[in-house]
Amino acid sequence: MAYFDTASAAPLHPVAREALLAALDEGWADPARLYREGRRARMLLDAARETAAEAVGCRPDEVVFTPSGTQAVHAGVSGALAGRRRAGRRLLHSAVEHSSVLHAAEAHEAAGGSRVELAVDRTGRVAAGDVAAALTPDTALACLQSANHEVGTEQPVEEVAALCREAGVPLLVDAAQSLPWGPVPGAWSLVTASAHKWGGPPGVGLLAVRKGTRFAPQGPRDERESGRSAGFENIPAVVAAAAALRALRADPGTGAEAERLRGLVDRIRARVPRLVADVEVVGDPVRRLPHLVTFSCLYVDGEALLHELDRAGFSVSSGSSCTSGTLTPSHVLRAMGVLSEGNVRVSLPYGTAEAEVDRFLEVLPRVVHAVRARLGVPVAGAGAARSPEAGSGSGSGSAEASGAASENAEAPGLVVDSLGKRCPIPVIELAKAIGEVPVGGTVTVLSDDEAARQDIPAWCAMRDQEYAGERAAERGAAYVVRRRA
Amino acid sequence: MAYFDTASAAPLHPVAREALLAALDEGWADPARLYREGRRARMLLDAARETAAEAVGCRPDEVVFTPSGTQAVHAGVSGALAGRRRAGRRLLHSAVEHSSVLHAAEAHEAAGGSRVELAVDRTGRVAAGDVAAALTPDTALACLQSANHEVGTEQPVEEVAALCREAGVPLLVDAAQSLPWGPVPGAWSLVTASAHKWGGPPGVGLLAVRKGTRFAPQGPRDERESGRSAGFENIPAVVAAAAALRALRADPGTGAEAERLRGLVDRIRARVPRLVADVEVVGDPVRRLPHLVTFSCLYVDGEALLHELDRAGFSVSSGSSCTSGTLTPSHVLRAMGVLSEGNVRVSLPYGTAEAEVDRFLEVLPRVVHAVRARLGVPVAGAGAARSPEAGSGSGSGSAEASGAASENAEAPGLVVDSLGKRCPIPVIELAKAIGEVPVGGTVTVLSDDEAARQDIPAWCAMRDQEYAGERAAERGAAYVVRRRA
Repeated sequence: MAYFDTASAAPLHPVAREALLAALDEGWADPARLYREGRRARMLLDAARETAAEAVGCRPDEVVFTPSGTQAVHAGVSGALAGRRRAGRRLLHSAVEHSSVLHAAEAHEAAGGSRVELAVDRTGRVAAGDVAAALTPDTALACLQSANHEVGTEQPVEEVAALCREAGVPLLVDAAQSLPWGPVPGAWSLVTASAHKWGGPPGVGLLAVRKGTRFAPQGPRDERESGRSAGFENIPAVVAAAAALRALRADPGTGAEAERLRGLVDRIRARVPRLVADVEVVGDPVRRLPHLVTFSCLYVDGEALLHELDRAGFSVSSGSSCTSGTLTPSHVLRAMGVLSEGNVRVSLPYGTAEAEVDRFLEVLPRVVHAVRARLGVPVAGAGAARSPEAGSGSGSGSAEASGAASENAEAPGLVVDSLGKRCPIPVIELAKAIGEVPVGGTVTVLSDDEAARQDIPAWCAMRDQEYAGERAAERGAAYVVRRRA
Repeated sequence: MAYFDTASAAPLHPVAREALLAALDEGWADPARLYREGRRARMLLDAARETAAEAVGCRPDEVVFTPSGTQAVHAGVSGALAGRRRAGRRLLHSAVEHSSVLHAAEAHEAAGGSRVELAVDRTGRVAAGDVAAALTPDTALACLQSANHEVGTEQPVEEVAALCREAGVPLLVDAAQSLPWGPVPGAWSLVTASAHKWGGPPGVGLLAVRKGTRFAPQGPRDERESGRSAGFENIPAVVAAAAALRALRADPGTGAEAERLRGLVDRIRARVPRLVADVEVVGDPVRRLPHLVTFSCLYVDGEALLHELDRAGFSVSSGSSCTSGTLTPSHVLRAMGVLSEGNVRVSLPYGTAEAEVDRFLEVLPRVVHAVRARLGVPVAGAGAARSPEAGSGSGSGSAEASGAASENAEAPGLVVDSLGKRCPIPVIELAKAIGEVPVGGTVTVLSDDEAARQDIPAWCAMRDQEYAGERAAERGAAYVVRRRA
């Protein structure tokens, strides 16, 4: 069995387990009380705060514990926005933030605020220049994750923090994925994180607000945690979380382990496209989290793939629409403009054995093949093999194809009715149909599947076909693809 | 050592500890994931929800877990109010609710809603008739605790629930203190509770919303816990909390234990006034929580009393102003109109040894005496000993005294300047001064201590003196007391 989804939740660190057990006996009482059990609880809480502050790189009185990373984000965003109410109500964030940031931004918008979503490039990175251009005087807050939770790409946080400081706008950095590996660099104003991502127990988030940052906690008043997080403190869990973080920071092997995992991820990044046809490895190959890699497989049903990998003993997650409750693909993959079908995220826990990664690389091709076979995927051939020449020649080929297309406005075209069919079927039907029209001819896919909007253009980019756009249709939408070669 | 503050937090139940340990190994993963670790976590969460629902007396899909009782209340109040937005924005609650309810009500008011606070009698109970009269058609929600957390008085929840149902108004019952002893009776719409009050770990609250109750969760959207509680589920703690609650319900001794503790509390209620002079035992003597009793001692500094009791090995809490961060006395004691100085709340944990209660009764008089001696309290004598005759004769005596007072509008009066002095000093100075004026004469106490507003009238009631009201003063207020005997 190999658990490769540490970006969702890491198993409890042994040090955290020990600390939790001790703190259940010593830290269960109310730290606001004056008697010995209360004082003991208060001492544990204070010590945990000092430990966490040191790991974050700030002062203990700048750190509060929340019941989750999500609540740290919600409290941080709403408090910072309210603290800057006089400056304006404009919230800036990247398009690839964690859903907790996006949901906080939606709530802000619903309450009359405005928000600006910054686009990312195909690796998932925000351009610092875009942030600089968007930092208007009425911007109340900017949010930028330290590294992406789905594809691992690191954001230019230090550079953006400097720009924000210059503009007088506070920057909130969601460091949920990167804090296990080191503190957030630069002149940030707020940092949020989640303990169960670094081997702490669930039930603990962290919100650091640097002195000088205007902050007005929202929601009903509560005297605990400096009024920034309501409810009785979960001291045993907080103590355990701090112990795990301290253990990671104190371990001289953390840096070495990061390098080792980085090497294993490099191996996956290099080998998967060689072992499996029609795969897109996404995210930045270098400026990324050490332990995380994501790829998408054409003509694959993500849920079936996860199921097969689970049967083979691998626990991974996916941003495919079929693996989400809402049947929409991951907003991160969408913002990057990459394929979402057959998506797999591998995030290696601290200490992952090399042999497990090799076994994964052995199992994966077989599993993908089996899923594709069941779906009746077009065999490699017309349109199914991507030659480097075709790729490099696509620039000029494109011009020719368009020329041909405009001459043949009424040229041969095929309509594929994929209504009612879910990812990856519309893309599979497109791949089958493209060989049936002449070069310059079009295939129009009718689909009401949300994933098609993202995956048909992504398929075109991968297969060097021309994506000619989307038209409204009676049901769903009509996606037009023009054959290039 | 005796921990007598289980109403603040109960130590972890052994069953909860065991369940927590097991669930740390089995329930750390994301229950929304499809792989085995996720499915296992989901199963544990589902089972815990079933257990909790059974103990609450509702359906599993009516229960969500929150990170604390406070957050259960905040989410319950805001969600129920928003769900009833069309009916109106009027919120009804008793004056003695837990601070989490009051703070939720304040937030509602700050957002433009209205609220009506229902008064309580001297035992801390709301009159069902008052609730009935206050249930206007535009009332969106009523909140009533099942039993008070500071004085133990049970509220007429079942009767009020029936009235609310008839009026079509949902009732939220804060059952934090009573749920360990049994489910909330009657036709309630929402119930909230907190696991660390019943021997579960910290980090778990419970919110039950009965089907048919209009409910619109507030705050940023989150898909977990039916959208009613944001953030990654704390499954190990939830499992432990459910295990502790099941253990309490399954234990045929719970009823017997309640009766045993009820007897011990009766002993405290009966003996404390005999062992210690000038004590007021507050709350309903019969319709109350089994394990909780509160009394206040005249001329005693609550913080010093707590400190001395702690030194003697007893952990208790207090509603005295000097033991709160804000230097205001407990709002519960204030609403009841009872003394707040020298206040002690004893809440006995499950299994408290009889001998410990007896030792407490042995230690208490000595400790109170020591604190009073240090404060230079007036020795028993004029005004300091309360004879039953004086008490029973106060009705007629009062009329005479008032007559005398109105004849002597310019009668001898003393002004005591207690400005800058904190509870219990103003009351001690009043007690010293009252003997120096003739019957019918007045003592005017100048005080800027918030506790004086509550404790001077309470002293008058206890000592059968006439409280003649409060006047504005340059600093603080002037409290006028007329000597009766």
